[in-house]
Amino acid sequence: MSDQPRVEIYTKEDCPYCEKAKDLFDSKGIEYETYNVTGDDDRFEEMVERADGRQTAPEVFIDDELIGGWDDTSALNETGELDEKLGIATEDDDDIVEHRTLIIAGTGISGLTAAIYAGRANNDPLVIEGDEPGGQLTLTTDVANYPGFPDGIGGPELVNRMKEQATQFGAELKNGIIESVDDSTRPFRVELTNGEVYTADAVIAASGASARTLDIPGEDELMGYGLSTCATCDGAFFRGEDMLVVGGGDAAMEEATFLTKFADTVYLVHRREEFRAEDYWVDRVEEKVEEGEIEIMKNTELIEIHGSQAEGVDHATLVRNEKGHPTDRLDDPETEEFDFDVGAVFFAIGHTPNTEYLEDTDVKMDDEGYLKTTGGDGGGQTETHVPGIFGAGDVVDYHYQQAVTAAGMGSKAALDADEYLEDLERAESTAEDAEPATADD
Amino acid sequence: MSDQPRVEIYTKEDCPYCEKAKDLFDSKGIEYETYNVTGDDDRFEEMVERADGRQTAPEVFIDDELIGGWDDTSALNETGELDEKLGIATEDDDDIVEHRTLIIAGTGISGLTAAIYAGRANNDPLVIEGDEPGGQLTLTTDVANYPGFPDGIGGPELVNRMKEQATQFGAELKNGIIESVDDSTRPFRVELTNGEVYTADAVIAASGASARTLDIPGEDELMGYGLSTCATCDGAFFRGEDMLVVGGGDAAMEEATFLTKFADTVYLVHRREEFRAEDYWVDRVEEKVEEGEIEIMKNTELIEIHGSQAEGVDHATLVRNEKGHPTDRLDDPETEEFDFDVGAVFFAIGHTPNTEYLEDTDVKMDDEGYLKTTGGDGGGQTETHVPGIFGAGDVVDYHYQQAVTAAGMGSKAALDADEYLEDLERAESTAEDAEPATADD
Repeated sequence: MSDQPRVEIYTKEDCPYCEKAKDLFDSKGIEYETYNVTGDDDRFEEMVERADGRQTAPEVFIDDELIGGWDDTSALNETGELDEKLGIATEDDDDIVEHRTLIIAGTGISGLTAAIYAGRANNDPLVIEGDEPGGQLTLTTDVANYPGFPDGIGGPELVNRMKEQATQFGAELKNGIIESVDDSTRPFRVELTNGEVYTADAVIAASGASARTLDIPGEDELMGYGLSTCATCDGAFFRGEDMLVVGGGDAAMEEATFLTKFADTVYLVHRREEFRAEDYWVDRVEEKVEEGEIEIMKNTELIEIHGSQAEGVDHATLVRNEKGHPTDRLDDPETEEFDFDVGAVFFAIGHTPNTEYLEDTDVKMDDEGYLKTTGGDGGGQTETHVPGIFGAGDVVDYHYQQAVTAAGMGSKAALDADEYLEDLERAESTAEDAEPATADD
Repeated sequence: MSDQPRVEIYTKEDCPYCEKAKDLFDSKGIEYETYNVTGDDDRFEEMVERADGRQTAPEVFIDDELIGGWDDTSALNETGELDEKLGIATEDDDDIVEHRTLIIAGTGISGLTAAIYAGRANNDPLVIEGDEPGGQLTLTTDVANYPGFPDGIGGPELVNRMKEQATQFGAELKNGIIESVDDSTRPFRVELTNGEVYTADAVIAASGASARTLDIPGEDELMGYGLSTCATCDGAFFRGEDMLVVGGGDAAMEEATFLTKFADTVYLVHRREEFRAEDYWVDRVEEKVEEGEIEIMKNTELIEIHGSQAEGVDHATLVRNEKGHPTDRLDDPETEEFDFDVGAVFFAIGHTPNTEYLEDTDVKMDDEGYLKTTGGDGGGQTETHVPGIFGAGDVVDYHYQQAVTAAGMGSKAALDADEYLEDLERAESTAEDAEPATADD
């Protein structure tokens, strides 16, 4: 491939988004060079200079042009521009590439489990990876509570084992992002962001949820320049700094605990008095509080982040009120506003379901965009309001959100889809049998 | 332990019930001798003679007295008689042994997953093993579709890994069988069949389901003498014989395929035209049909098994009607009754939920005894109609019944129970705070 453009990727150790970037180019058959900046100050300086001051990995370059981090690379891939830059763009002619029995959206735990079961059921699933291949678990270094691994297992390793298992049973994994599903025709029309169109008899939406942001001043400017939604990805870049983690659930506790490895002090900011996290994580955080590595700031909210892309985060503005939810009480004289010096800010405040591609369908969603499924006892628990479209994992589950609960739902969705497909096949063959008979009458 | 009675166990290779029997004595700290009859004709003859003609393993003896197979041993254990014979019976004084935050009934996949999560949530779970420790998965030699094991994993190994994981997080596993739960008091009173009583703030019912039988003539007499509900346990005893498998689901397909290793021909008897099993298994069976190792008898039902405990199964009586469900059509002139020579019969016709111990509670069940839970979206999906009692796994799920779906529900039950327990703790501490204040007024 001597005529391909030169692709360079700055990476660091323990960087899930670096792996995602490499996987993306691998999936396209594109060769690239990687430069590991961990422990290599010269390389790090070089990266920061070439990346216009950005200090986070990965940083991707094509023919010396700065593409950016994973979000930028992924966004370019969605629009098809990445393929153009790589000289591998295909004609955007809206021709139907292929008909598939079953398309699964997402390669997180629920999508891959659905793929394992659908493969075994001979439904020949095509699994579209989406913009976060492997899903949220790829951002977790150690999964301790997935049943069957008493010594724990790395998130990416568990995902890779499931990919291998799904592939063995006949599932096909494809890099790409679903733009829309058209449920006004049968089979469904499934269009990707690169313009490719597939038809499918059934669709399993296992597209997960993405990290939420606060929508406060400074956020857009500083995302990737000291502000991050992934402690395991970016924590090590801010070694020795004070760091601020926003959130009160398991993820916030886990990230705060993890960041003590690098931070001077980790400040855990939570808008209420009580944490939502499981006791295990609250206990871990409290141990770190006793050791002086974490300080908890309860009934406190972040309202602005100050800094620049050149210098990173300088300080944050916070509000506090002992009654909780201080931004709901800005007029309350007891609400105190104050500035606070920190070198990095991490959001761990939950997720938004990835369901935009279903917005033009009759699939019902709640106010936040989570898919509504039948639930209940017996079969059909993963059915949406559109027969033939099923939902599984964090795209449905706004409450439990565990790897093993996502896996359970993925399995159910594949079994439900299989029943739907068998009914469909039976109905079609009955219709075929019936037609000649009618003609004979 | 020189004053303990002499315990002898005849075992064979690949015999899950033999492992259960050994585990039971291990759990009581009782030493025993084992005699492996696989490939040892003399030992086999000795076993058959000492066991009054029974040809199945395990066969258990205490001080030369025939106890019987796993079912007999387990039944004696339930009533406390086994402990009496072993000289380790405790006084049946109905004193409360201990108060526990959470008791989990069952150590199958759902109970163990609940234990992993409850351990991590600091709920200090006591897990009562029940009469089938490890649950149904211990009867499966190769689990191919549990996500995370691309090379497959043995059922007992997966169960043991989960036991280790649960124990690591603080769960305590205890041999015993729950006789009843009293929900008229708080904490709940949980009584075991050996007379021990525990109290518990919350209970997770993960007690699974047990193999169903047909209730036909010959069944009681011949169970264990040529009739079995576990092909992997007993198949090898009938090498070279024609074998009959009854059922049409995954388990029936799997058992029929497995039995081709030993049988002259396997006859698969199913009362309908279509199998319920997943395509994967139907395909495996059809390959064996082409190879002449399995013959399928559709629209056929077994109505009697003939033979003796001395000679085993001699033949079976079946009925057939091409319209299906022939026993519903015994008066139909097209229903044909016929005798059929076979050397062994295996039932693979589903399961009955183990919920007897909840019959005196207000927990709602369906007609078959499956627990009714809330289900639906969001939290609390595993709640029964009694606050503080939760249901998970095959004791609730009569439809999907997969290892990974059971695991998913176990995780949900532990998270639901944790929320219930936290609310309870908060309510109790509020009540305590409130009381002195009232006294001061």
